[in-house]
Amino acid sequence: MNPDIIKERQNATFDVEKLINILDRGPEKTKRRREIESLIFNDPDFKEENPNFLSRSERYDQAVRKSVNMILKLREYGITDPEEIYYYKRCMHRNRPEPLDLHLGMFLPTLLNQATSEQMDHFFMPAWNLEIIGTYAQTEMGHGTHLRGLETTATYDPATQEFVINSPTVSSIKWWPGGLGKTSNHAIVLAQLHTQGNCHGLHAFIVPIRNMDTHIPLPGIVVGDIGPKFGFSEVDNGFLKLDNVRIPRDNMLMKYAKVDPDGTYMKPPSAKLTYGTMVFIRSLIVGEAAQALAKSCTIAIRYSAVRHQSEIRPGEPEPQIIDYQTQQYKLFPLLAMTYAFTFVGQYMKETYHRISGDISQGDFSELPELHALSAGLKAFTTWAANGAVEVCRMSCGGHGYSCSSALPDIYVELTPMCTYEGENTVMMLQTARYLVKSYQQAKAGQQLSGSVSYLSDAEQRRVQPQPVAARPTVVDINDLASLVEVYKLRAANLVQLAAKSIQQELQNRKSQADAWNSSATDLVRASDAHCHYVVVKLFTEKLGEINDTAIHSVLSTLALLYALHGIQQNSGDFLLAGLLRGPQVLQISVRIKDLLSQLRPNAVALVDSFDIHDNKLNSVLGRYDGNVYENLFEWARSSPLNATEVHESFHKYLKPLRAKL
Amino acid sequence: MNPDIIKERQNATFDVEKLINILDRGPEKTKRRREIESLIFNDPDFKEENPNFLSRSERYDQAVRKSVNMILKLREYGITDPEEIYYYKRCMHRNRPEPLDLHLGMFLPTLLNQATSEQMDHFFMPAWNLEIIGTYAQTEMGHGTHLRGLETTATYDPATQEFVINSPTVSSIKWWPGGLGKTSNHAIVLAQLHTQGNCHGLHAFIVPIRNMDTHIPLPGIVVGDIGPKFGFSEVDNGFLKLDNVRIPRDNMLMKYAKVDPDGTYMKPPSAKLTYGTMVFIRSLIVGEAAQALAKSCTIAIRYSAVRHQSEIRPGEPEPQIIDYQTQQYKLFPLLAMTYAFTFVGQYMKETYHRISGDISQGDFSELPELHALSAGLKAFTTWAANGAVEVCRMSCGGHGYSCSSALPDIYVELTPMCTYEGENTVMMLQTARYLVKSYQQAKAGQQLSGSVSYLSDAEQRRVQPQPVAARPTVVDINDLASLVEVYKLRAANLVQLAAKSIQQELQNRKSQADAWNSSATDLVRASDAHCHYVVVKLFTEKLGEINDTAIHSVLSTLALLYALHGIQQNSGDFLLAGLLRGPQVLQISVRIKDLLSQLRPNAVALVDSFDIHDNKLNSVLGRYDGNVYENLFEWARSSPLNATEVHESFHKYLKPLRAKL
Repeated sequence: MNPDIIKERQNATFDVEKLINILDRGPEKTKRRREIESLIFNDPDFKEENPNFLSRSERYDQAVRKSVNMILKLREYGITDPEEIYYYKRCMHRNRPEPLDLHLGMFLPTLLNQATSEQMDHFFMPAWNLEIIGTYAQTEMGHGTHLRGLETTATYDPATQEFVINSPTVSSIKWWPGGLGKTSNHAIVLAQLHTQGNCHGLHAFIVPIRNMDTHIPLPGIVVGDIGPKFGFSEVDNGFLKLDNVRIPRDNMLMKYAKVDPDGTYMKPPSAKLTYGTMVFIRSLIVGEAAQALAKSCTIAIRYSAVRHQSEIRPGEPEPQIIDYQTQQYKLFPLLAMTYAFTFVGQYMKETYHRISGDISQGDFSELPELHALSAGLKAFTTWAANGAVEVCRMSCGGHGYSCSSALPDIYVELTPMCTYEGENTVMMLQTARYLVKSYQQAKAGQQLSGSVSYLSDAEQRRVQPQPVAARPTVVDINDLASLVEVYKLRAANLVQLAAKSIQQELQNRKSQADAWNSSATDLVRASDAHCHYVVVKLFTEKLGEINDTAIHSVLSTLALLYALHGIQQNSGDFLLAGLLRGPQVLQISVRIKDLLSQLRPNAVALVDSFDIHDNKLNSVLGRYDGNVYENLFEWARSSPLNATEVHESFHKYLKPLRAKL
Repeated sequence: MNPDIIKERQNATFDVEKLINILDRGPEKTKRRREIESLIFNDPDFKEENPNFLSRSERYDQAVRKSVNMILKLREYGITDPEEIYYYKRCMHRNRPEPLDLHLGMFLPTLLNQATSEQMDHFFMPAWNLEIIGTYAQTEMGHGTHLRGLETTATYDPATQEFVINSPTVSSIKWWPGGLGKTSNHAIVLAQLHTQGNCHGLHAFIVPIRNMDTHIPLPGIVVGDIGPKFGFSEVDNGFLKLDNVRIPRDNMLMKYAKVDPDGTYMKPPSAKLTYGTMVFIRSLIVGEAAQALAKSCTIAIRYSAVRHQSEIRPGEPEPQIIDYQTQQYKLFPLLAMTYAFTFVGQYMKETYHRISGDISQGDFSELPELHALSAGLKAFTTWAANGAVEVCRMSCGGHGYSCSSALPDIYVELTPMCTYEGENTVMMLQTARYLVKSYQQAKAGQQLSGSVSYLSDAEQRRVQPQPVAARPTVVDINDLASLVEVYKLRAANLVQLAAKSIQQELQNRKSQADAWNSSATDLVRASDAHCHYVVVKLFTEKLGEINDTAIHSVLSTLALLYALHGIQQNSGDFLLAGLLRGPQVLQISVRIKDLLSQLRPNAVALVDSFDIHDNKLNSVLGRYDGNVYENLFEWARSSPLNATEVHESFHKYLKPLRAKL
């Protein structure tokens, strides 16, 4: 064990194991999580070659091998709890996405939700046993989130009782679905349904794409891998071109919408049924963003404790780089962010489970709020985490660029979250739509509930004679409740500004649609402020649940740092709204520096509390024992270019050149 | 040609060719640049396999092949102008770093600058003819920018008149030098010189590392590749462990410092001689950051003009995504930034050339200022560009993640610039040291010149009775000169705050060193504001050189957007310093939206003006003809995983699984 990191652990003021239990939500859960980890990390079937040393084809191959083993093991061990399966899978693949993701996460659940009982009989068991391997093909090369824009058609032919599925243009080729390129033999294809001369919009069809025995693509099908990407090297994201492919009528998923043998169409009872899944997936993404942050902070902070560089005091030995204020200022706010987002992810999952009972009973009353919140928080947390991982990487100097750090991998696994399951700007605008609507309801005198209730309060306050400038003096920059309040008022102010911008544009004779577009940047800022408020509020509320004094103290410091750092980064908003005065903003800068010093002795313990197993972290820089350099040397020596002492290019090019010059 | 992009070009208000000439600094230079490009792109010897489809070893192999061809061609064509060689090389390698970079950019120049005439006779021609291939080995695994911290030793043995070069620890292993792993047979090794019982600090030694004939590492040498990284796949960044390797006394570079045969040491006349090179390289980096930005903006803006998605007005066809205000707000400020940084890079190179004559005459008077400026601007521009490339990538939705977009490659080529040739935070603190020193001189009544002269002005104004609050009313947010002024005052204010923080810490009985570290975050902010001011100022001054009315108009709009967007992003600073009032900040937000609309018709023409050849851009999304989708399909089909219809993993794992379940 590296002596620096031993000392760091000795200096911690709280019991790490207790904080681990809090993050796991109970000691039993910690125990079970570690059991699952040891099942995986002690299993020779899950040993892996370092993917950074493999070709893309080898990476894909290794991932398929591991996924197949996983299916066998999960059944052998009888692991059936969805959360446990999810953890097992993520842990086994070291958080890397894998070829069966869409089969397990979209194909099977879509069958469960949208197949009739006859279809279940026909498709489900073969899919459960991976005879049928499926994916979910919605996005097209030229069309993303806008469902009406999708071009693939499914035309019903009553003569043969078949649907004819077709890709009419290059831009209509299905593009991106995971597992589509090489792995799947079936796809649930989303296509515009045409029957009896009418188009009824997007519906889902089960389309066989490869021969079950030979795996060769079927006639009329052009399928393949979309090529290398920024990350996701294990996944065969694919393309699918359908040339008037005929499938039986029974292959349309007909639990809700139906097409009769004669072609008569019956529409589904409600469009809201798919909302719940989206909310659930987005809440998972918040948790995954927090996890990527936790890994990044663990690596950067442990490394900063063992790395010595330059000088603070002339003549003294090189200090640990974690003692530089600039390094603390880079990393500790991100550590605070990690805790914040972890709690937000937990809150969202809990809220989803709380109201999913209502949803299945047809009570959608809480759904619009949760839908708006999950959209905005997905965007807010993934954007913030995206920048944060890169700050962590760059805080490790040169070694952060080496794949041995794991930080490049973490980034490329995280960054697509900003785009998939709802592009972030689109998500922010969805939240904004809800905020503006709520604001208008509040203005019309309606009392709002939930996370937007403050818009009612703000409206009430506006009509009272209290001058805006009288407020700031009451803000206590050391009191979290007071800070939650200013974040709330900032959000209210920005929602109001965005709504006013729309109003202004309407007065300039723009249409509602154009007024919205001309105010879109204001709307995004309003959503961002709303989400920021929610995060500060949830972090603060979480502190109320912590009984251990030492842990309460350190988490309160983190929460305060998170809140004050956010104000510092957005001080213009707070000054502009008259919520803070200049001297307070200057005080906040000084206070942040105090908080950095205060957190310094606990920094390593706070990342140890994420309890990320070395095998899962997979980072030479972030090793628990801190023995970075000898392992870095070993890692490099085992890399493929060192398999031979002399690279063939010497004999091919460099030596012959001598004769030519 | 895609009809959308044709229309965009028709709508431009200025002559693109004229702006191309301005950016090239003269029509003759445009002509010559295009000649060089056509030499490369029409040469079958420079045809390349798509690196994204190759293994690391194949990428390295291809790069060596091309570099060797390049050496032959440059001599064949008689291209000898350093700028032309630089352009030829970058263009031929599509801006990718390559294995000979350090031989050409560091080994040869170091010989030229630091070798005696006898050493030149011995080493230079073999190196010029690539018999000797060398690299520059300074950084060690455990030590970066801090030269005193480096551990490698060179101990003089007068008995044999040899130096004994040694890596005493794992952390002392040389790490990172480009071309060291596989390509080089020599290295200039930086080591602590010990002679006659004294250590004289870091000196440079020429160390043979591989057999000239077989390329096998020499006895006592452990050398290899440091393994895969985030980008730089063509380069064999290497490690070098020296186990008491003996080299002749003549292998120490002795133009300045000397060791006599008996071991007597003579120190060099000046330490400032190496400053000039650093300034030059950092000014090149600013230009390269601008070039990476230019590529990214070209791709994102052209793609935004051909991509249609979602809806602005209900029921209408999907609009070009460049018509969304949010998309304009993401991209147009970055377009403005690209122009700003391009001009800054040009300015720095010109300034360097202007004063390099003085430097070679031993007149270093302008060097401290230029050194401080180049350090800060290197950090300021690479950090900004780093975030900006990712915004461009994410603005392309899913397709931005595909390597076909080229954006992932641009990012990984750019991001190391934040760390190499001076880690950015360290750079900012170097600039801050100069600023604080200048501030103290101004306070002591000294009249400053150059980019920091405003610190004198600020000091003078401070003693006058004019109240701070009287200033803001005079700011005209549409007048660039007025905006340069507020940027200047913001910088002055932040320099003053940082200096005060140091003062405060000293009063709290901290040592000078600790006071500096406790104020480091303030110091970085001050440097950042100083650099921001310089960039706005240089952009504004550049406009004075533009005679063409139409081009002057559009570049003025860009400069205004750059300045106002910077204020919006940092509005707290301007409000806090009393430089702007709340209503002005709100006006700026509205004005920015106007500017976005104003730039909209010229967006494509403004990226066309970077005149980046399709071969150099190497992006399916950014093609000049806008024919994205058909080429994306073709690109994907030619990728390696599609070489066979059925991947072997089907037969190895997926099919056998059926029998096991």
